[in-house]
Amino acid sequence: MTLTPEAQAEIDAQRARPRQTLRAVSEGMEAHLYSARPVLDHGFVRVIDYMGDDAAICQAARVSYGKGTKSVQNDEGLIRYLMRHWHSTPFEMCEVKLHVKLPVFVARQWIRHRTANVNEYSARYSILDREFYIPAPDALNAQSVVNNQGRGELLEGAEAARVLDWLKTDSMRAYDHYAAMISDEGQQGLARELARMNLPANIYTQWYWKVDLHNLFHFLRLRADAHAQYEIRVYADAICEMVADWVPFAYKAFEDYRLGSVTMSAQMMDCLRRMLKGEEVTAENSGMSKREWREFEGVLG
Amino acid sequence: MTLTPEAQAEIDAQRARPRQTLRAVSEGMEAHLYSARPVLDHGFVRVIDYMGDDAAICQAARVSYGKGTKSVQNDEGLIRYLMRHWHSTPFEMCEVKLHVKLPVFVARQWIRHRTANVNEYSARYSILDREFYIPAPDALNAQSVVNNQGRGELLEGAEAARVLDWLKTDSMRAYDHYAAMISDEGQQGLARELARMNLPANIYTQWYWKVDLHNLFHFLRLRADAHAQYEIRVYADAICEMVADWVPFAYKAFEDYRLGSVTMSAQMMDCLRRMLKGEEVTAENSGMSKREWREFEGVLG
Amino acid sequence: MTLTPEAQAEIDAQRARPRQTLRAVSEGMEAHLYSARPVLDHGFVRVIDYMGDDAAICQAARVSYGKGTKSVQNDEGLIRYLMRHWHSTPFEMCEVKLHVKLPVFVARQWIRHRTANVNEYSARYSILDREFYIPAPDALNAQSVVNNQGRGELLEGAEAARVLDWLKTDSMRAYDHYAAMISDEGQQGLARELARMNLPANIYTQWYWKVDLHNLFHFLRLRADAHAQYEIRVYADAICEMVADWVPFAYKAFEDYRLGSVTMSAQMMDCLRRMLKGEEVTAENSGMSKREWREFEGVLG
Amino acid sequence: MTLTPEAQAEIDAQRARPRQTLRAVSEGMEAHLYSARPVLDHGFVRVIDYMGDDAAICQAARVSYGKGTKSVQNDEGLIRYLMRHWHSTPFEMCEVKLHVKLPVFVARQWIRHRTANVNEYSARYSILDREFYIPAPDALNAQSVVNNQGRGELLEGAEAARVLDWLKTDSMRAYDHYAAMISDEGQQGLARELARMNLPANIYTQWYWKVDLHNLFHFLRLRADAHAQYEIRVYADAICEMVADWVPFAYKAFEDYRLGSVTMSAQMMDCLRRMLKGEEVTAENSGMSKREWREFEGVLG
Repeated sequence: MTLTPEAQAEIDAQRARPRQTLRAVSEGMEAHLYSARPVLDHGFVRVIDYMGDDAAICQAARVSYGKGTKSVQNDEGLIRYLMRHWHSTPFEMCEVKLHVKLPVFVARQWIRHRTANVNEYSARYSILDREFYIPAPDALNAQSVVNNQGRGELLEGAEAARVLDWLKTDSMRAYDHYAAMISDEGQQGLARELARMNLPANIYTQWYWKVDLHNLFHFLRLRADAHAQYEIRVYADAICEMVADWVPFAYKAFEDYRLGSVTMSAQMMDCLRRMLKGEEVTAENSGMSKREWREFEGVLG
Repeated sequence: MTLTPEAQAEIDAQRARPRQTLRAVSEGMEAHLYSARPVLDHGFVRVIDYMGDDAAICQAARVSYGKGTKSVQNDEGLIRYLMRHWHSTPFEMCEVKLHVKLPVFVARQWIRHRTANVNEYSARYSILDREFYIPAPDALNAQSVVNNQGRGELLEGAEAARVLDWLKTDSMRAYDHYAAMISDEGQQGLARELARMNLPANIYTQWYWKVDLHNLFHFLRLRADAHAQYEIRVYADAICEMVADWVPFAYKAFEDYRLGSVTMSAQMMDCLRRMLKGEEVTAENSGMSKREWREFEGVLG
Repeated sequence: MTLTPEAQAEIDAQRARPRQTLRAVSEGMEAHLYSARPVLDHGFVRVIDYMGDDAAICQAARVSYGKGTKSVQNDEGLIRYLMRHWHSTPFEMCEVKLHVKLPVFVARQWIRHRTANVNEYSARYSILDREFYIPAPDALNAQSVVNNQGRGELLEGAEAARVLDWLKTDSMRAYDHYAAMISDEGQQGLARELARMNLPANIYTQWYWKVDLHNLFHFLRLRADAHAQYEIRVYADAICEMVADWVPFAYKAFEDYRLGSVTMSAQMMDCLRRMLKGEEVTAENSGMSKREWREFEGVLG
Repeated sequence: MTLTPEAQAEIDAQRARPRQTLRAVSEGMEAHLYSARPVLDHGFVRVIDYMGDDAAICQAARVSYGKGTKSVQNDEGLIRYLMRHWHSTPFEMCEVKLHVKLPVFVARQWIRHRTANVNEYSARYSILDREFYIPAPDALNAQSVVNNQGRGELLEGAEAARVLDWLKTDSMRAYDHYAAMISDEGQQGLARELARMNLPANIYTQWYWKVDLHNLFHFLRLRADAHAQYEIRVYADAICEMVADWVPFAYKAFEDYRLGSVTMSAQMMDCLRRMLKGEEVTAENSGMSKREWREFEGVLG
């Protein structure tokens, strides 16, 4: 990712002028503000604004007049309790606004998370940049043979080269024709809202995305998961790092009770209790389908 | 649009087996069920299910035990009153589920309406069909010279031919490469979740879309509007016809108080009152910006 | 709960007139339609309408033309897979509309579930009935001494009698004054929107509540839980029985993977793996807080 | 309204410690932060936090790297354009968090606005204060004789005195019994979650309420309206003043295009055009119902 000198100058200008506020301030998040953290070959995530910090979660949970802080230890304990017992509304009291540059096919997955605010760069109104996602060699995988919606081994040799060549040349040709169609030199020039339909799903778009912390955690749990597509997971991973600096207690609780947690079904709990009593439990006497049993073995390591 | 014989057979099978129910039934909507109404060159809208009718709106508004109908006239009057005074919750008590086939660039606009339920055909899991939207000659417009996000005159002659040729050949080539990349004949075969990125935004996708009547009206007001892009407006128009058959009173009220209504600003109302008193009101003494004055003249016809 | 003869007649009339439809029909749910299932002393839940069935969940997940059913076994397997892997959107494709009569303090908890449609009986517009929730003797508990937001032992003897007497006489007096204030006999009569403020939170209100199956399951998981207040849990339990008849596969999956499931934190999973290897794990070497350890012991039984 | 010395000290402490931030700062809103603006006899609204300012709306609309400001004039024009043409997403990019103390019957109306985040003081967990809303003499109105859900003339003399006496003594008695029931002196003490049911709807509750600017405007349009109940309108009015200081351009546009605007139906527009041509239009030849015609005459003044 390379920002234009103009974009970089605007970012530098924003970072150069601290102002005074009476609001809650998270030093960890101030350090991230406006900077563009690179993701994939041309994408980025940058924090535009945020509201609240760990103490604000406690303040709302207690509906208190002051900061809501009795002590730092107290705050961490309360936050962990809230997370563990699915008391989600205090986490909704923090909010973050991000500027994200991402391929269209990633944007199409991302937008499915409805409880968020979005302003996307308009290709009806403006001209898109000539920037396309081309996978790095270590992200160019074959279809998985066990999972219908996953990836398997890396592509190699001539096949990998052929795929990369097609992705690049088709993108470039599509963009050349896009540019030629909208040009008004010596012709009328096709409407932008029509011309954009020639562009493939690996072109980059941009948006402002604003979300509360509870819904962001829900997004991260699904998209930072090992089953998520790699190209959206890298965005989720980048955001995780920012959130860890913004609300460290809440993020740690999220790691322990969501990201690293396992949901055991009624059948799994039953088997578990039998196993702890020393009983031999097998796929056959578990009461689970083969697939569930495999998943059960997986989580027990 | 041509359905496969299998798809048509499934639709026929569904239409052939009426069953008994105690629920509210809208005869107008039963006639639409499952049939695919063509939109654009390969798209369609078909009603999969619906809940409620005009009487159900009144029943909910009255929180009543029975059908909520005092008389048909009464019901229409109540519905018009509710619509006029922005009492939106009774309209939320009706629901509709549609199966829609639409180009990806239309889907990207559509999905911005967040208060709805969606299941989209997964290109991570499945292989997309070779179907692309190619505009008809009378929908192939130049960029508007007055509106940055609109269309102007029709393209003509060589320019139109060139555009159509590019759209077609780029689509076909992109699909050929897509198919070649995912093929597992003599090679590993690229993961579907990656290969789809080569496909342009005029490829067709499909989804199930479920929405309540209030939010559907909001969608229709914005997307059946003259300023909406033609390619989404034709879907909105098709849905309008279905809704008119489903809940005729509510639809008529929507036409009168939303679709055909005009919102007058405080300044416009002031000018209007002066004009009705016989005063000469001009752009200069109106207190409006030039753009607003032009819009004001527009609505007064 | 006693319905007025008029209300009962309206229910009977609705149940007497089956009509034909092409939509998905759930026989199990048809049997519930319109009947009022009693809850608490004057409350009820009754199904007004529903959309979809188990097959409709599969149909949406597959974005298919027909019923989406390959075989019944197939459908159940798919539904269990969707539930287990948090694929929530197909469950959003079913919808239910309920008419509920409930005490105001229960309504105030219930309304916190925002993803639903509601029409409540208006006490600005109408006069409320003289019906108040008075707990049965076996639901009249003392404050819990271990849980700040729970109940402990039953109240007994003179204390129980005193509480019941206050609840009854205060309710009746408040209603008498309410009725006297709004009366227009020999006086102007206070506005209803003001007079209602004299009524306590155990008065009954009514509403139409419409929700999709995914959000209903979320409501039921929280409100049919042992930690939910008894007075809302009985409504959740009543609705569970209806849902079990409506979408039996989905309800069974919900029981196994949500209601009866346990979420194990990263620390709990670590302890569990150590225990299964035969290691002795104690509160001290568990890495958990005392409270978490107690919860861990609790789920292991 | 009187704050406890502790509450006032906490507010003073928060206002005493400005910190540095790189985020957008609205000087107008900083002046409001934490202070409690009195509403009704014991209620208040106070700003706890905010995100964004007028420039942030433009920045999001332009999806820009920098502040998004070309010039102040430019920004105001863009904001007015966005408001006039119902481009709502840029307004969603501002957010505000309020601490509100309000009577329960007002809270019950307020909570119907679902697109917001709420943490309410829990009467399951905590003990409510002895504070009740008692209308001032100039807010003690009779039922309207023309509007089923409105107020008419002021109550006077003996009737007014009787009403106020009932409201006061019933509140106090209900609270006395509430306190006596939960007391654990010499008895078990009723569970708080049950005891609260004895309290009338004029008791005060508190909550943290967080909402984006678009949805706040929607709330204000409905609740600052002349048809809203007086007791919620005074809260909306108080918030309007804060918003005017926070985002002055957006608030002015909201006043002109929402609060002070009039929606003319298709029929009204038809009549208007005929009137401007000099035609005599009457209730009879208007094509409107009597009620609509009366409303039409109303807006034309």
